Amino acid sequence: MRYFETVEIGAKEVLGRHTFSREEMLAFARAYDPQPFHLDEEAAKRSPYGAIIASGWHTVAVWMKCLMAHQQTHPDASSGGGGPSPGFTNLRWLKPVYAGDTITYTTEVKEKVESRSKPKWGIVRTYNTGTNQHGELVMDFEGAAFLKRRF
Amino acid sequence: MRYFETVEIGAKEVLGRHTFSREEMLAFARAYDPQPFHLDEEAAKRSPYGAIIASGWHTVAVWMKCLMAHQQTHPDASSGGGGPSPGFTNLRWLKPVYAGDTITYTTEVKEKVESRSKPKWGIVRTYNTGTNQHGELVMDFEGAAFLKRRF
Repeated sequence: MRYFETVEIGAKEVLGRHTFSREEMLAFARAYDPQPFHLDEEAAKRSPYGAIIASGWHTVAVWMKCLMAHQQTHPDASSGGGGPSPGFTNLRWLKPVYAGDTITYTTEVKEKVESRSKPKWGIVRTYNTGTNQHGELVMDFEGAAFLKRRF
Repeated sequence: MRYFETVEIGAKEVLGRHTFSREEMLAFARAYDPQPFHLDEEAAKRSPYGAIIASGWHTVAVWMKCLMAHQQTHPDASSGGGGPSPGFTNLRWLKPVYAGDTITYTTEVKEKVESRSKPKWGIVRTYNTGTNQHGELVMDFEGAAFLKRRF
């Protein structure tokens, strides 16, 4: 179990990899982001993307999926519900994600902050990325997660 | 069609309302955010939430869904694919969303910036919220969207 005290600044972990299938891209887009270039092959062909691309919100939801899978084997002393809520900032979608692309997701510890208002918790600031099979950064964002303190 | 020039600072719009069903909350959590308090009623009862809550990523994906539905009747001169990508910052989840909660989503124009590097586009900065049926803010974030200029 990784507590606030044992988190190392600079530690970078691969959370997982995910290959985006056309079916899941369409299902997500239908439910949450029905823009033509996410849903319609003909419209996407006419767009500068040239083919259907994944919703940006889908690409970040899969980051979460990979984090959760990673925590099965690398558990954090996080809230488990009811703790302070995490926050996210500077979310950017930098390159399109096409069907068949494999995205590798990482998280890197940038900063640790002791919480004054919540002495049982510390804040861990992270830089999080998704990179495709060509080595291109497709999305990134900064996160703030709360971890329990050991004492 | 709303172009950069016709966007008014301070304009606030209700994008839509959505009632979160238990089934869709479970489906999203299973796919992307399988934390016990999103998936397991017994675990959620033992957590400070007291019942299953929606994944925060689900609540923001539904903001996108409402924006897209709103744009069917209030179209923006946005990229339609291939334009500059939007960005998001300061995403916060402030209150839990329970099954049966109805969230009202809004967007408000905070700032307009003429893009120097992309003269065909302007940047519109927005403040975006979700509020539950009790009037409590459950999530908010700031967005930056690109809109085409009219000339």
